[in-house]
Amino acid sequence: MNDELFESSDSVRSAEPLKYARSVDFDEPLELDQGGELSNVTVVYETYGRLNDDKSNAVLICHALSGDSHVARHDEADSPGWWDLAVGPGKAIDTDKYFVICPNILGGCRGTTGPNSINPDTNTPYGADFPTITIADMVELQRRLLDRLGIEKLLAVVGGSMGGHQVLHWAVRFAYRLRGAIVIATSARLSSQALAFDVVARNAILHDPDFRGGQYYDAKAAPNAGLAIARMLGHITYLSHEAMARKFEADRLQPREAPTEFEKKFSVGSYLAYQGAKFVERFDANSYLALSMAMDLFDLGKTGRELSKALADGRVRWLVMSFSSDWLFSPRESRQIVDALIKTDKPVSYCNVTSDCGHDAFLLPGDLESYDPLISGFLDNLSGGRAEAATVDEAGQDRSHTSIFHPEHPQRLDYDRILELIAPSASVLDLGCGDGELLGLLQHRGHERIMGVELDEKAVIACVQRGLDVVHADLNDGLAAFADKQFDTVVLSQTLQAVRDVEGVMDDMLRVGRQCIVSFPNFAYHKLRKMLYEQGKAPEAPGVLHYRWFDTPNIRFFSIADFHGFCRHRKITVHRSVALDTEARQEVTDDPNLNADLAIFVISR
Amino acid sequence: MNDELFESSDSVRSAEPLKYARSVDFDEPLELDQGGELSNVTVVYETYGRLNDDKSNAVLICHALSGDSHVARHDEADSPGWWDLAVGPGKAIDTDKYFVICPNILGGCRGTTGPNSINPDTNTPYGADFPTITIADMVELQRRLLDRLGIEKLLAVVGGSMGGHQVLHWAVRFAYRLRGAIVIATSARLSSQALAFDVVARNAILHDPDFRGGQYYDAKAAPNAGLAIARMLGHITYLSHEAMARKFEADRLQPREAPTEFEKKFSVGSYLAYQGAKFVERFDANSYLALSMAMDLFDLGKTGRELSKALADGRVRWLVMSFSSDWLFSPRESRQIVDALIKTDKPVSYCNVTSDCGHDAFLLPGDLESYDPLISGFLDNLSGGRAEAATVDEAGQDRSHTSIFHPEHPQRLDYDRILELIAPSASVLDLGCGDGELLGLLQHRGHERIMGVELDEKAVIACVQRGLDVVHADLNDGLAAFADKQFDTVVLSQTLQAVRDVEGVMDDMLRVGRQCIVSFPNFAYHKLRKMLYEQGKAPEAPGVLHYRWFDTPNIRFFSIADFHGFCRHRKITVHRSVALDTEARQEVTDDPNLNADLAIFVISR
Repeated sequence: MNDELFESSDSVRSAEPLKYARSVDFDEPLELDQGGELSNVTVVYETYGRLNDDKSNAVLICHALSGDSHVARHDEADSPGWWDLAVGPGKAIDTDKYFVICPNILGGCRGTTGPNSINPDTNTPYGADFPTITIADMVELQRRLLDRLGIEKLLAVVGGSMGGHQVLHWAVRFAYRLRGAIVIATSARLSSQALAFDVVARNAILHDPDFRGGQYYDAKAAPNAGLAIARMLGHITYLSHEAMARKFEADRLQPREAPTEFEKKFSVGSYLAYQGAKFVERFDANSYLALSMAMDLFDLGKTGRELSKALADGRVRWLVMSFSSDWLFSPRESRQIVDALIKTDKPVSYCNVTSDCGHDAFLLPGDLESYDPLISGFLDNLSGGRAEAATVDEAGQDRSHTSIFHPEHPQRLDYDRILELIAPSASVLDLGCGDGELLGLLQHRGHERIMGVELDEKAVIACVQRGLDVVHADLNDGLAAFADKQFDTVVLSQTLQAVRDVEGVMDDMLRVGRQCIVSFPNFAYHKLRKMLYEQGKAPEAPGVLHYRWFDTPNIRFFSIADFHGFCRHRKITVHRSVALDTEARQEVTDDPNLNADLAIFVISR
Repeated sequence: MNDELFESSDSVRSAEPLKYARSVDFDEPLELDQGGELSNVTVVYETYGRLNDDKSNAVLICHALSGDSHVARHDEADSPGWWDLAVGPGKAIDTDKYFVICPNILGGCRGTTGPNSINPDTNTPYGADFPTITIADMVELQRRLLDRLGIEKLLAVVGGSMGGHQVLHWAVRFAYRLRGAIVIATSARLSSQALAFDVVARNAILHDPDFRGGQYYDAKAAPNAGLAIARMLGHITYLSHEAMARKFEADRLQPREAPTEFEKKFSVGSYLAYQGAKFVERFDANSYLALSMAMDLFDLGKTGRELSKALADGRVRWLVMSFSSDWLFSPRESRQIVDALIKTDKPVSYCNVTSDCGHDAFLLPGDLESYDPLISGFLDNLSGGRAEAATVDEAGQDRSHTSIFHPEHPQRLDYDRILELIAPSASVLDLGCGDGELLGLLQHRGHERIMGVELDEKAVIACVQRGLDVVHADLNDGLAAFADKQFDTVVLSQTLQAVRDVEGVMDDMLRVGRQCIVSFPNFAYHKLRKMLYEQGKAPEAPGVLHYRWFDTPNIRFFSIADFHGFCRHRKITVHRSVALDTEARQEVTDDPNLNADLAIFVISR
């Protein structure tokens, strides 16, 4: 049964003993979030790498519903972990640099106290007597473990899916113990759709006659059919429509032989049957119920306001990642977290990784080239690794596709002027920030509150690697997340001409910035006028508007005079305008609308 | 239990007796698609309206998995049908005009022969002995019913979801008996994701201990838990993410009281529990298994080529509809059907109705204002109702947002010239056809093979109401569905300037058309040149380019000279170019690039 068809994120996991796991027992009872308590609680965990002398390099990894403490292999001979891809020497979470701790969560069935543990009151397994637990209880137990390990402050806490819920609760409850937080493919609370799938899955277990109200540990049979059906259903939601098509369309009526009693008529059926059958070998139905209910009860608030309030404490630095084809924890749900963080001015970066692998993407190799540099870049900068160096090293690059300058240009002339126009230590939001060149210059100059918004995924990754805070978003979708006058200065450099919703973007930036700086190519530059007038052709010129009419990224053509008119008409105050002849590399004062190819406006409303 | 929360497409259905149903028995055995036969087959059906004298007004409605013959109420006192919204006097399928027939499908449990029918060989219900049936078998039985009713040719056959599969099979097998076909929210074969949900649902039934291998009719209990879980799961897939959020987010932890043993902690849980519990009152688990397997086995081919071949027979006219938020039978799957029909030159209209109601949208009132005029317009034109009148009545309107002319203009001047340039009786594809004004003029002139592509949903509906074939699509996504040189003439009138992918659209149209006619505003018109040159402002002029720079729908600015250059460079033959001064309403021969505001090119490659 070593068939590629059957391979998936954690189908390779088995119930093998965890050779490297250690455990800690806590005598002090654990008071539970929803009432009641658990006494004699045990945590099983594994660690990787070495805790440094000042104990500043600890990274806590929170696993998802079906995971355990075995996040990665400890050596070549060890069995694979559930996140070998990202954790290990030289990997995104580099165990040569960081001390990684991964505990099995409360309610799990791989060592940490859960429904299959012995209830000290009865000396039999808890079963149905296991109390309702929540994400808060899991995190409280993780905190106790850290206390026991003598770690006061984590470099970062990292988790995907339900692991992300734990990370979010860490920030809600113990922000002062974190420097950074990485949440992947998660949400502030489950969507009704995700909740509904969980309800159906639980009902499949609850209605399995072998479930016996949860007291099946002494019985001949466990509720394996119900648990397998729950797992099959889960698996569908972890994959995307596209991923399933790719896996199963070619031979949909050629099921693999799998040792299971489930329907195997279709190849997708044999896959699900196999996943279900494998899962029951290593997982406990009562744990599934307890953990899935904990996930469903997790709720940081219905509104953005509630969510912002929940996340208001401390100064945690955030990296939020979603996957474009994840429909169980959709990008929109990650954006809600990001927006709530923006609202309270938290340092946050967000990337919606283009992927067709669905929710499971973060456990699969397909999108590693995106999420690897995001995670490693974020952690490096958090630990003071390379932010400064990157700014200097990469300052020469210009990835912006909307730049009006020739690729040969070593640096954009307008940046120098824009820098002069920004007050020292002003907070700055750069809309369409590209790979963060301008923000890097500001960072170098000592500005502390700076942030970018960028549409291009590769540019977003470059920003994160530079240690910048950047949000992956389309300006045309608006800036609703940002508060009125949240930034001293908002910059929109050489981007307005490529924007569809000019009025919307202008209104938004003027609302968010006390002062705004807009630069754009001047369409009434004399060479352009002349070309249209004399040759009757769509103007192209070296430098400004060097694109051809049929494939230019620019879709708005306007002049300095047009922009003045726009400001007048829409009651925008123009504080200053600078006109440049970028070919001659000089400022223009004589008839700028004729002689300048680039303009910079300082405006407000 | 009359709570709005619980209302859904067919949760109102009950197992009440079907007062108006009639039945027909067939002595001749039904040979089955997958082998075996059924003898003594019965069909239960209902009819509405009156069959006209020449028997040309019969409309067959094929129901989906959980439906039955009771498609609509017969009178005020009657219980509601599953598609009351669309079927009845004055409704989309107008029973004052059409004779509507709705049979319960083979394998169902509401009268027509199915697993709960008596097996004449054993005098007990079939149960597990009911043979595997397919969509082909259902359609064969429907054909026999029509024969019995003496109806040789249907005006149309209509169906959504699995009903759509039956419509598709009607066209595959009996195209000569149809004038039109309406398929709604369906597919040529299930996606692997949809298949996977069915597999899980069937396994829930098969593993219910009360299922007893299908022989439960004499037992104390039916596999109600399994069937209910299958139904709950189905329900999630019928709703969209957005619809679920709207229904359940406001009070997610306030479940309604429902008389069921399923988990009701969350409001979405109580909804699903209620749906599951209600369903088992009126549906049979063996029927669910038989019908869901029939749906899963339906397969018109993996490739577009196979699908085209399957649908190659006859000259059926098609209306294909999808709903934008339907993820179970996604718009992309409807497009596969449309593309296959285009490939073999079938008359087809397609509309992807904007909706947030998911797969169930066609059974809900939310999007009635879109699908009602589509269906009624299509049927009216099919029956020879009003195509001609509409062309004349509505010829004055211009809905095109990319028109360069003032709204006051009674008709676009370029249409007259374009009409002159199109050979009599040429086949014509109009890209960006708006509400079909030009196509209406061609229709009036007697062109038979004419078709439009349009992005705006309202305009698509208007085209269908006019009796035109139109495909709802974005030109920037390409014309891959169309064959090389499929049309004598392809028209792109006043649209190129609003297209992002100019090169792609041009290449596609030149591939599909023997000859292409492109009209566009001339950006080098003297008034525009002058405005930029003298005033230094983005040109606006009455008529041509009357938009403001910041909100014009036009994103490409080019002149007659530019277009000539483009053609030269890309080896496009210019057969003719016509230049117009639309303000003066006259043709321009002297220096068109200076004096014309509109150009029409006849080109080919």
